[in-house]
Amino acid sequence: MVYFDNAATTFPKPDEVYDAIMKSMKEYGANPGRSGHKLALRMGREIYETRELLAKLFNIDNPMNVVFTSNCTESLNLAIKGILQRGDHVITSSMEHNSILRPLSSLEKEGVELTIVKGDRKGRIDAKDIAKNIKNNTKLIAITHVSNLTGTIMPIEEIGKLAWKNGIFFLVDAAQSAGVYDIDVKKMNIDMLAFPGHKGLLGPQGTGGLYVREGIALKEIKQGGTGSLSHMLEQPDIFPDRYESGTLNGPGIVGLGAGIKYIMKTGIENIRKHEEELTKHFIEGISKIDKVKAYGPLNVEEQGAVVSINIGDEDSSEISYILDEKYDIEVRPGLHCAPLAHKTIGTFEQGVVRFSFGPFNTHEEIDYALKAIFEISREI
Amino acid sequence: MVYFDNAATTFPKPDEVYDAIMKSMKEYGANPGRSGHKLALRMGREIYETRELLAKLFNIDNPMNVVFTSNCTESLNLAIKGILQRGDHVITSSMEHNSILRPLSSLEKEGVELTIVKGDRKGRIDAKDIAKNIKNNTKLIAITHVSNLTGTIMPIEEIGKLAWKNGIFFLVDAAQSAGVYDIDVKKMNIDMLAFPGHKGLLGPQGTGGLYVREGIALKEIKQGGTGSLSHMLEQPDIFPDRYESGTLNGPGIVGLGAGIKYIMKTGIENIRKHEEELTKHFIEGISKIDKVKAYGPLNVEEQGAVVSINIGDEDSSEISYILDEKYDIEVRPGLHCAPLAHKTIGTFEQGVVRFSFGPFNTHEEIDYALKAIFEISREI
Repeated sequence: MVYFDNAATTFPKPDEVYDAIMKSMKEYGANPGRSGHKLALRMGREIYETRELLAKLFNIDNPMNVVFTSNCTESLNLAIKGILQRGDHVITSSMEHNSILRPLSSLEKEGVELTIVKGDRKGRIDAKDIAKNIKNNTKLIAITHVSNLTGTIMPIEEIGKLAWKNGIFFLVDAAQSAGVYDIDVKKMNIDMLAFPGHKGLLGPQGTGGLYVREGIALKEIKQGGTGSLSHMLEQPDIFPDRYESGTLNGPGIVGLGAGIKYIMKTGIENIRKHEEELTKHFIEGISKIDKVKAYGPLNVEEQGAVVSINIGDEDSSEISYILDEKYDIEVRPGLHCAPLAHKTIGTFEQGVVRFSFGPFNTHEEIDYALKAIFEISREI
Repeated sequence: MVYFDNAATTFPKPDEVYDAIMKSMKEYGANPGRSGHKLALRMGREIYETRELLAKLFNIDNPMNVVFTSNCTESLNLAIKGILQRGDHVITSSMEHNSILRPLSSLEKEGVELTIVKGDRKGRIDAKDIAKNIKNNTKLIAITHVSNLTGTIMPIEEIGKLAWKNGIFFLVDAAQSAGVYDIDVKKMNIDMLAFPGHKGLLGPQGTGGLYVREGIALKEIKQGGTGSLSHMLEQPDIFPDRYESGTLNGPGIVGLGAGIKYIMKTGIENIRKHEEELTKHFIEGISKIDKVKAYGPLNVEEQGAVVSINIGDEDSSEISYILDEKYDIEVRPGLHCAPLAHKTIGTFEQGVVRFSFGPFNTHEEIDYALKAIFEISREI
């Protein structure tokens, strides 16, 4: 089986991740921050270690500014709804995932002004287009780092500067970049960074997080027990407790920590280089196959390890079905929860067949996929 | 080590739970409902099986009315914020956890009317007190099934009848009862049932759920990718997708399914009987120790496997510390995220030392704890 659906969730995970999850469940599977006993303290310490690892990875000064969530979508909802109020203006792009577009669309109905800057046919966003749309009441710019459809890398450092100069909060969706591309919240002027735990960071599903810059007070979207200031009926005003109501996914967060340690040990630049080579190999291969239409920059300088294609006018689901059934290759067809991005690149009707590569994919797998695509292209 | 903190999270889990989680991560750790390939479909099927098991356990007709969340707190927030609007009246009790009190307290500031019915000194809620407080605009009654402080079992069937007769929605917090006590949403007229996965249901942390009766449309608290109706910028109006934005905790939900299967195989009545015997044994033992003050009904007919005590006027944290350090017994001191419940039973200043038992505790462990309590009571 060849797994090329790493943009949905990376598979497999490093063995260290499986081992860390099992160890935490079997040896100290208690509730962190809820009791003072040995097991609870151990779980609390291990969770804190993951906060520290994330802080180190993203150049965050204080690990307590990392909030754990259940996935990147929850992180984005918390950031967006926590900061925007009726009358505020927000700028985003047509390349966003529904995890940004749907919360914004829901706030638009409640009186938030929304501008969606359009990408070009390769899925590129121009910082100048964002600059042009800044108004007096612009409070937030929310942009993905790497498109989940075309892999396009967005100019987030440039947009970060723009946001900083204009006193606008800058939210980055690192769903496709965390763990593969360098992210430095200080250098890039990122005020809020949303990331999943189960993609590039190689942790398990059920984990994610949001970095919130010191001094930003978001309205929380959930209230409940935090194990802190339990005498109060008001949600405590403490980071990260205010945003972490209820029992955290302890073993999941420990597994995420193991994923980050694996990345640091391997070297993020080595992982990126490996994925770039696979992507380049794949792009070169498909460019030689007649009938294949490929989307996005098709250039690893501008693109993450995501390549979307179609074969002729064939429905993307049909091609994916053949890849799965006949070749045991797992890819993702359809709209990828990014409808405006598909409209931007002109694939809203047909969808695309998305290939997304991870650290454990090989050049042999790419060759095998290219052979499969070639054969299918001859048969249809 | 003796673990008596099962009300915070059950520990250990059955071996089947560990095995199911590992198997799902290693063999089919893909993203459910996001792709059509074999691994994604397998994960989707396994998640659906957990929905079915929950439906069977709680007598729910349609498994699609079970929404997965990251914990019981999220479930309660979704239920409470999804149904209440400015001008509505809600009745709850002083025995609730902050996971009910804090969301309600936050809504009160936005114009929701809140009545908190007081329990008696044993933590009991009288359905008549709820009846007395029903008004024309009462939309919701939100009550815990079993108190996390005193273990008191609340008359939810009686309250359910009352709610049904008056056309009021009934939300039950099953944080301390799911997996141990019989819950029948039809017989008990429960409109919404919030439950954690990692307590009595023996699943891992990072799991929880909310049953929502057919025909109730809650406002969602998060929007995002659902893998369904991806072409729309509006959140889809489909159960359970509307409430499950972003990647689910696949392996966690599979582990939860294994926990429920373990419960069904063992027999929920056998688990309950075992916990009742342990509780009875413990209550009888502490009643013979001078200086021990015990709270709650102190009667297994009226009480779950949670017993809270103090020794003289000693601070509850100090006693817990000695139990941990000297005896290797893990309990939970303090306020247990239930400040009004502590006020109700008169322990707001001192806190209590909470012992909570699980299916894997033994009578020998109870004897050992009683001996420890006796020794501590002689020394202080």
